[in-house]
Amino acid sequence: MNKVMKTNKGRSGISINGNKASIRLWAPKAKNAFIKLHESGEKLALTSEKYGYWTLDTDQLKDGSLYQYILDDKDPLPDPASVSQPQGVHGPSEVVDLNTYQWTDADWNNVALEDYIIYELHTGTFTPESNFAGIESKLDYLVSLGINAIEIMPVAQFPGGRNWGYDGVFPYAVQNTYGGPKGLQQLVDACHQKGIAVVLDVVYNHLGPEGNYFGEYGHYFTEKYNTPWGNAINFDDAGCDAVREYFIENVLMWFRDFHVDALRMDAVHAVKDFGPEHILSEIKSRVSELVAKTGRQHYLIVECDLNDTRFINPQDKAGFGMDSQWIDEFHHALRITAGGDQTGYYSDFNGIADLAKSYSDAYVYDGQYSPHRDRKFGVKATDNPGKQFIVFSQNHDQVGNRMLGERSSELFSFEMQKLMAGAVLTAPFLPMLFMGEEYSEPHRFMYFVSHTDPELAEAVRKGRKAEFAAFHAQGEAPDPVAEETFINSQLQWNLPEQGDHLVMLNFYKALIALRKKLPALHHLDRKHVKASANEEQRTLILQ
Amino acid sequence: MNKVMKTNKGRSGISINGNKASIRLWAPKAKNAFIKLHESGEKLALTSEKYGYWTLDTDQLKDGSLYQYILDDKDPLPDPASVSQPQGVHGPSEVVDLNTYQWTDADWNNVALEDYIIYELHTGTFTPESNFAGIESKLDYLVSLGINAIEIMPVAQFPGGRNWGYDGVFPYAVQNTYGGPKGLQQLVDACHQKGIAVVLDVVYNHLGPEGNYFGEYGHYFTEKYNTPWGNAINFDDAGCDAVREYFIENVLMWFRDFHVDALRMDAVHAVKDFGPEHILSEIKSRVSELVAKTGRQHYLIVECDLNDTRFINPQDKAGFGMDSQWIDEFHHALRITAGGDQTGYYSDFNGIADLAKSYSDAYVYDGQYSPHRDRKFGVKATDNPGKQFIVFSQNHDQVGNRMLGERSSELFSFEMQKLMAGAVLTAPFLPMLFMGEEYSEPHRFMYFVSHTDPELAEAVRKGRKAEFAAFHAQGEAPDPVAEETFINSQLQWNLPEQGDHLVMLNFYKALIALRKKLPALHHLDRKHVKASANEEQRTLILQ
Repeated sequence: MNKVMKTNKGRSGISINGNKASIRLWAPKAKNAFIKLHESGEKLALTSEKYGYWTLDTDQLKDGSLYQYILDDKDPLPDPASVSQPQGVHGPSEVVDLNTYQWTDADWNNVALEDYIIYELHTGTFTPESNFAGIESKLDYLVSLGINAIEIMPVAQFPGGRNWGYDGVFPYAVQNTYGGPKGLQQLVDACHQKGIAVVLDVVYNHLGPEGNYFGEYGHYFTEKYNTPWGNAINFDDAGCDAVREYFIENVLMWFRDFHVDALRMDAVHAVKDFGPEHILSEIKSRVSELVAKTGRQHYLIVECDLNDTRFINPQDKAGFGMDSQWIDEFHHALRITAGGDQTGYYSDFNGIADLAKSYSDAYVYDGQYSPHRDRKFGVKATDNPGKQFIVFSQNHDQVGNRMLGERSSELFSFEMQKLMAGAVLTAPFLPMLFMGEEYSEPHRFMYFVSHTDPELAEAVRKGRKAEFAAFHAQGEAPDPVAEETFINSQLQWNLPEQGDHLVMLNFYKALIALRKKLPALHHLDRKHVKASANEEQRTLILQ
Repeated sequence: MNKVMKTNKGRSGISINGNKASIRLWAPKAKNAFIKLHESGEKLALTSEKYGYWTLDTDQLKDGSLYQYILDDKDPLPDPASVSQPQGVHGPSEVVDLNTYQWTDADWNNVALEDYIIYELHTGTFTPESNFAGIESKLDYLVSLGINAIEIMPVAQFPGGRNWGYDGVFPYAVQNTYGGPKGLQQLVDACHQKGIAVVLDVVYNHLGPEGNYFGEYGHYFTEKYNTPWGNAINFDDAGCDAVREYFIENVLMWFRDFHVDALRMDAVHAVKDFGPEHILSEIKSRVSELVAKTGRQHYLIVECDLNDTRFINPQDKAGFGMDSQWIDEFHHALRITAGGDQTGYYSDFNGIADLAKSYSDAYVYDGQYSPHRDRKFGVKATDNPGKQFIVFSQNHDQVGNRMLGERSSELFSFEMQKLMAGAVLTAPFLPMLFMGEEYSEPHRFMYFVSHTDPELAEAVRKGRKAEFAAFHAQGEAPDPVAEETFINSQLQWNLPEQGDHLVMLNFYKALIALRKKLPALHHLDRKHVKASANEEQRTLILQ
């Protein structure tokens, strides 16, 4: 048997070492492969390697060079492992030497996970600048608020300039309109100078519809499993070794080359992998290797809609070893308790007793029959510490996936908003705010895209309408393609210093300060928290 | 919260207690449901219960009564949990009181798993009678051969009378042409009298295409996963609780009501379940409860094409707790060593070194890159004892899924057949024979069906042809629908006493006797077996 134990590990894409650019491309179906230099038009043949890889070392590419690949004499395509797409998803890729940035965070230590107070933001709508520099200009504000981690919605290159980020089609490339890869390095460095950790939202469960050239290169998708976004990414079917390596190396890149402190992996319940080692567990192992090498701590956080502790249990207990997970059910229970509608997935929640259960048990459904899901749902999370759960009263999904994108500021009274803030910031879990909630931003956070393909834009419009059938929502969904939908979703920075907005801001500051100060609030030991509900008085008592 | 911890456990179908018949049906989408008594034509309304169940206790049904269900005033349908379909898959269901059989096996103890020597047979082609009585007439022959377990290919009711059994559409019903449920009880009892354990092949990964009325009743399938046979059975999607219970109770029925000793679950790699408790693990737990109650031992054996020890590891080590699994790779390695073609999935195997590896490690691929699968495949099975692996030089698939269905008798020399028998019966695993190989039956074992739907029959014909594209087979596939394909697949019972057939039979008898006699051969401790291959001399040395 002349079998090889492992496929070649390592990153695809182009890396620069001195004068030499090393090219690595996975294109197992190609009979021949060339790199086309954008300026000269010259084509250099790549060499075929084992397992469908193609490589070349050349001195003809340097930081800033544009290039494309040509497979089997077809049209030139961007690099699936491109780190920069200065002309957007359809344009040529750009060589960027990620090692040139002069980091100033050598003394930085990641915030301890149990101390995280997270602030989720969307780069495009957080500031009128709609970029990383805009975020940087607000860091002092965030420090004064008291949070110590920002969570940036996905920055992987997406079509156009307006997108939540979940339509990204270049997982390695940093959105050009946000400031590109060097802009993100600059932002992370600045955050670390201010004592703020950076959580980056990454999407490993699907790739967007426009500018998606993956099918031209290899078996990135499998027909074995279906997801809400079509065929699942191929983590366990023919060709999966290279696909797994592609996403593992993506994780490592954010940590190693961008100094990102934690990843928030989107909807991992749609990461389908029946193989003997789940991709999340392999990611964990490879991150642990990196951490052992660099001494820098990095966390893996998942969004997971399964109430299954397998995701967050340690690897030596057959878990995938994820550090923490979002816990939407706390949100649902809180929102219903606050008087929100019981439509759609909220129909499974009744009120304050559910909230009390979430305070005690994290998962509201931990084995019971769920009418909305029409099955028994969840397992008990008895042995999982509080830092493994992230709670919130709002987030981009819960606000933006309402048909009109109303925030709590529009849906609940001022006093109720305060109560909800209190519920989150006194919870024995990690609290997360959604940008603007701290001063009761009245602007909605709507769903917006800027696909250039008109058919796709129309499909998105229709899809949004269909999505709200379950919620029986009244009225018309805002046009996701219109620029004003994006503009009207931006924070209004003249507000935090005014009237009730200022009152709310000060309330949040006080709550956050209290959480940091009082051991009972930041110890995160659910066993010491006794939550009980008084249904008649609609009161939750924490002891 | 008025949530209930568990959905109602228990069997669907009709059970008889004295004069009372208890009806239980899962039909969650129905607005109303009736049982139609076949003889009188009378309709009795069923009562709607929680979780989509319908029930009725009545004295109008008894052992032998025929019935159908009527949902929402549509056409009458057979019972998805029918135990008997005397008129075939489209006809009415029959009430059978499974408790009337007078068992004579009170003293029976299951054979210890490590001692199993299995003989796989297909009821339709094992004898010219094509039924359970035919099998019973050969039990003395099987005892004299030395085997101590028969494995019966699936008996769940399928369309027509000629089928391997994998097109079954009534998992609870015993094929009418084989002798029905009481015929199976009689056979198992007779086997136990002769000291033979009974392994039943059951199919929980799909249901057949003809006579499949499941869609009329409930969400038995999910669109989340695709299998080679269409949408996967729903073990983790909306409505899955009842589907899970349906299959769990099916397992319990075979053990409790038919005294079956072990199940061989077909292709469990296509049993898709991402829920927190895999259905196989839940089956194991429920079987353990039954075993604790009755004191009778039952084994769960899986066919699994994943080389993933998770299936066979104990539950307290995060495994599914299956007792044993088929190990096709031993077969592939053996067949290539014997000089078989390296086409299709055989292309991953090179010869005697692979066979030596399988002797040592069970799985040939335990982490290496598999060219045929185009990915790394498998994990190491270091801690799994030999009794967890079942090996063979032939089985129904490996013979019958050849285009022409040739057995080893046609493909390999007489001496090579003996060597292959020796390889299997000296392996530190559980050996399995395929009916007829012990006397080198020359008849092929071909693929046959007797669907009554002509379009389906044509589709099966075409499908068979397409399947062999990968093997580049020469010639024409036999017509699976033709009766002679079935007849020409039957064993020829005049042969075992003649010439070379008798020589081979005596060779098998001697080998089996030797295996039983020599501790080194039945101890099944791979750590004491040192297998080494001499490639040049094509010799395998076992020490």
